[in-house]
Order: sequence, then structure tokens, then C-alpha cells
Amino acid sequence: MKFTTLEYKDGKLVWIDQTALPDRLDYKTSSDYNEIITAIKRLEVRGAPAIGIAAAYGLAIAVKESVKIDKEMLHDLANEFKRSRPTAVNLFWAIDRMVDAVKDIDMIDKNRLVAALVDEAKRIHDEDIEMCRKIGEAGADLIPDNSTILTHCNAGALATGGIGTALGVIYTCQQQGKKINVFADETRPLLQGARLTAWELQQEGINVTLITDNMAGMLMRQGTIDAVIVGADRVTKNGDVANKIGTYAVAVLAKENNIPFYVAFPSSTYDLSLETGDEIVIEQREPVEITHGFGKQTAPDNIPTYNPAFDVTPARYISYYITDKGLTKGERG
Amino acid sequence: MKFTTLEYKDGKLVWIDQTALPDRLDYKTSSDYNEIITAIKRLEVRGAPAIGIAAAYGLAIAVKESVKIDKEMLHDLANEFKRSRPTAVNLFWAIDRMVDAVKDIDMIDKNRLVAALVDEAKRIHDEDIEMCRKIGEAGADLIPDNSTILTHCNAGALATGGIGTALGVIYTCQQQGKKINVFADETRPLLQGARLTAWELQQEGINVTLITDNMAGMLMRQGTIDAVIVGADRVTKNGDVANKIGTYAVAVLAKENNIPFYVAFPSSTYDLSLETGDEIVIEQREPVEITHGFGKQTAPDNIPTYNPAFDVTPARYISYYITDKGLTKGERG
Repeated sequence: MKFTTLEYKDGKLVWIDQTALPDRLDYKTSSDYNEIITAIKRLEVRGAPAIGIAAAYGLAIAVKESVKIDKEMLHDLANEFKRSRPTAVNLFWAIDRMVDAVKDIDMIDKNRLVAALVDEAKRIHDEDIEMCRKIGEAGADLIPDNSTILTHCNAGALATGGIGTALGVIYTCQQQGKKINVFADETRPLLQGARLTAWELQQEGINVTLITDNMAGMLMRQGTIDAVIVGADRVTKNGDVANKIGTYAVAVLAKENNIPFYVAFPSSTYDLSLETGDEIVIEQREPVEITHGFGKQTAPDNIPTYNPAFDVTPARYISYYITDKGLTKGERG
Repeated sequence: MKFTTLEYKDGKLVWIDQTALPDRLDYKTSSDYNEIITAIKRLEVRGAPAIGIAAAYGLAIAVKESVKIDKEMLHDLANEFKRSRPTAVNLFWAIDRMVDAVKDIDMIDKNRLVAALVDEAKRIHDEDIEMCRKIGEAGADLIPDNSTILTHCNAGALATGGIGTALGVIYTCQQQGKKINVFADETRPLLQGARLTAWELQQEGINVTLITDNMAGMLMRQGTIDAVIVGADRVTKNGDVANKIGTYAVAVLAKENNIPFYVAFPSSTYDLSLETGDEIVIEQREPVEITHGFGKQTAPDNIPTYNPAFDVTPARYISYYITDKGLTKGERG
């Protein structure tokens, strides 16, 4: 990739401040764990896998920079990181794994403790890179040469430690010499498609055309789109998919127009404790995201809004699930 | 209504500059026909019926202010107005009607010519007010008390000379004492839903909740929406509907969720010269509407866009056509 979303270097975390994109490619560097937590809270680092990796390195750095450390302090630091984004499952998973990795190490030997934490964070990162690679390879089998793909939100390299999930499939096709065109939904309200997906595909030399979310249907009806690939935030036991708001509409439009609908995600995204998507609690976000898009008021004062961060796409709309474990045929497959 | 979209007063056209909404309610006045054409091009006046009325008054004003006038000059002026917006059939219809109304008048008698043109423009305006009233009454029969309606773009009083088409149905329900809740799609890229529909419904005291376009599907799946009502820019012989981009997606989502989909429009919107919607040429608009939509750049430099102003909803998605001539059952009715 021509950019590095996250890197651990000389005892510091280096990350792209994604809030500055697409205006500026702005790398930030810090050995202050509070700055790393702030970066997660401010969405400078976003995307479930990327948050998990940043928090893992962040915890290692917090211990490394601490004057003294004991079990209770480690536990408190871990909880501080867990509170940075309340709904991110990968974040809890990564932090729990970090704490577990050093449970048998004597805290008095701080050098050994820090080395073990850094090792575990690097392992989480390396596994993520490998996971993206496997998703890309599995998904590329579904995409013929000269395909035009529609994607929604950003499930790319900016959201992971590797080449991404949905966009990882596209990068793998590119590596295989396939010619791929992409249409990117801008993805209101936070415009991850316009700001992040369009940017990273452009960086990597992939033909990308930006549209507003409500244009995807017309392109599908015209026969322009060969397949849809999106990411997933949570997948329940029956195959329902929670993902960025708007995913459900894209899935319905794909079915109506007989276009395959693929969902790409790490197998850790499966939440087998939930039977169906109806059990997923959907985060409601602030009205200002809708009424004050980007620095300017675009709706009347005091207008009520409804602003869910995610929606649920029922299993019957999904052609294939693409994970690091391979392809799984969906009900539409 | 608590505002006046268009008015002919003292030989001048007075209009609301809708590009200033919802920040400011800004009335503009002009007796310069070029300013009126510019206002149509800049979408200060928008909505098919309102464009037709503004152009009709504009043509009368152009002749009134001209130093001399003959058949050829009238023809040229008419064409200037027709070129201001390519897809609006009402515009062509209104201008043709204006020219036809004075075809037997001697151009040398300019006072008589101007009086006839102003009369015809006022007649078009009055008929539009009456047309809106009839659409509202016909449509209200389809809407039970306590309904929750989804609408897209702005087919309201701001789009017509009267109470609107799609929103005219809602205002008529309100007059009848029905309690109606409305969800308004913001309608990217130009945000007519956020800026105009939310504004005018709020002005008139109707409960309105603003959403981004990609949230409508989730609301429909949750059972929140009882009916969808939208306007139309052109309706072809077979019942296909050209309307604001995103209408097709809403129609597909409504069908998928067994929610009635109603289209409200003046009967003059029928274009019987076209067999199907496939024959409609769709206006493509500037990338900047997508890439700089909120007063700030939100996409990378030089990113290609696809920006159609309209889409076509096939007849099979439509439950009822609501016009000034009454209700017509659609293929889904």
C-alpha cells in the first residue's frame, strides 16, 4: 500500500489522522497513551480491526511509559482503552488478549512485561494483515476480470492493519491483474465513502467513481454494477449482517436487480451469542451529523432527526460471506 | 401558507431564493428576464410546476421590458426559457402555452400582447393553485388518520404555485384534522429534503423528522412507514416516473416491505410522446455538488463522479398516481 494506517516504530505509535482526509495525509506519532485513546475517540483511527490494533499497541506503550506498574494498574489501563469506543467488539477482544498474554509474567520485571505486550500487539497486527490477505484471496475468486463493483462505507486498508476486507478483495483482484472499476457510495452522514474509500482507492490507482447513496439503485438498474461488496460490524448465528447504515438498502436493490451481494469480514466478526439481527442494539448518534454535515447548517433549527449508525441486512439478501476461513454461500448464493 | 413561493407584483416577479433556505427566508424581486432565467438555472426557483409558472411570468416580463418585439424575437425568448432546465416538461408546456395564447395577436400592439401574456401566466398560476388543491383532496383519501409518511426531495409548496403535490396531500390531511407524521429524506446531493421539505413542513406545524437517504430502508423494514408519497418530473405513457435521483431506490424498498408507493403530480406532467421511461434523457450535473456539498471539500481532488439529477421508477413499483384528475391505480395498486 502507498500509505500505512498504523505502525509501531521506535516505541511509538504512528497513525494516519483520518479526520484530516481527504484534505491532508497527516501522520501522527505519540508515546503518550492518552493521545492514542483520544485518537480512537475522535475517529482519527477507525474501523473495528484498526481500533483493536491501535489499542493493543497503546496498552503496551502505556505500560512502557509508566513509572511503575502492577496488576491493578494494568487492569485500570486496560479499562481506559475499553471505554474509548463503547460498542467496538474488536477493541474488547484485543485488550482482553493483551492482558491475558501477560497474566503469568511478574510485574516487577518491567522490561520483560513490556516486551511481551509489544510482542502480543505485533502478533494481533500481523494476524490482521494475514486475515485481510486471506479474505482478499477468497473474495477475488468471486470477481471476474473487468468487473464493476459497488461498495458502501469504508472497509478498506484504513479500517484494518492490512489491505482491508471489502476493499482487500478489490486490491487482490488488482494484484492478480484484473481490471476493476469501483463505484463508492459517499455514505452519509459521516461520508466515509467520499473521504476514505475514494481516497484510498485513488491512492492505489484503482478506477473509482463517487456517487451519493441514493444513486446506487439507478446504476444497478442500468446494468452498470456487476457485484456489491461491503464489510460487516457483526454477523449473527442465522447470517444477518449489521453494517453501516444504508447497507440494507443496497442489499435490497442488489436483489431486485439480480446483482450478487457479498459481505467480507474477519471470522471473529461472527457473534454466535445472537440468534438473529433483531437482537442487535443499534447505536443512535447525534442530530448534528445530519443537520450540520460538514461545517455548515443544512437543515432548519431544532429539526428532529433519526440517526442510526448501523442497520441490519437479513441473511436472505446475501449471496456469499467472504472471511479468512474462505467462502460461505448465503441464502441468495 | 406562511410563505409565498412565487408572486407577480407591479410588473415584477417576486420569488423565494430557495438556495438561501433554511438559513434565511430571502425574497428576490426582478423585472429582468435574464435574472429570472438565472434564478431557474441556479435552482433559486425549482420544482417542475414552479419553474413553469416562473418561466411564464418571465416570458411576459421579457416582452414587457423589450424595446421591440416580433414573432421571431418572441420565439427566441421562448427558447431561451426552454433551455434553462433540460428535464422539466412543465417548463416546455408552460412556454408553449404562453406562445400559443398570443399567436393571433398583432405584435405591433405591444400593450395588448403584454396584457395577454400576463393574463396567460396568471391563468397558469391560478390553475396550478387549483391543481394542487385537487391533488391534495384526491391523495388525502388514501391516507388514514395517524399515518406516518415518507417523502423524498421537495414536492411541496416551494415546488409549485400552490400547496404542493406530494406535500399538498399532507397539508390537505392536516386541514381535514388528520394527525400525520412525516419522515423527510435529506435528498443528496442538493439536500432539498433537509433544506426545503423539513423547512416548509416545520413552518406549517407538521411533525417532521429528518433522515439521510440511506436510512429510509431501515425505517420501512421496522414498520415505521405507512406510505411513501413523492412528486414526479415526467410520467411516460406506460406509467414510468422520472423524479429526483433516489426515488427509484425508495420505490424498490417500499415494494420489498409492502408499503404503498404514491406519486402525486399535475396531469400536465404526463408526457404521452414517450412510451417508457427508457426514452427520458437524464440531466447529468456537476461533480462539485457531490465533492463540495456542504461548503467544504469532502472528497479527494479530481475524483470522478456520476451525478444524475433524476432517475426513472418503472410503473410496476407504483401503487397509485395522484393527479388533479383524481386517483389512478398503478400496477402495484
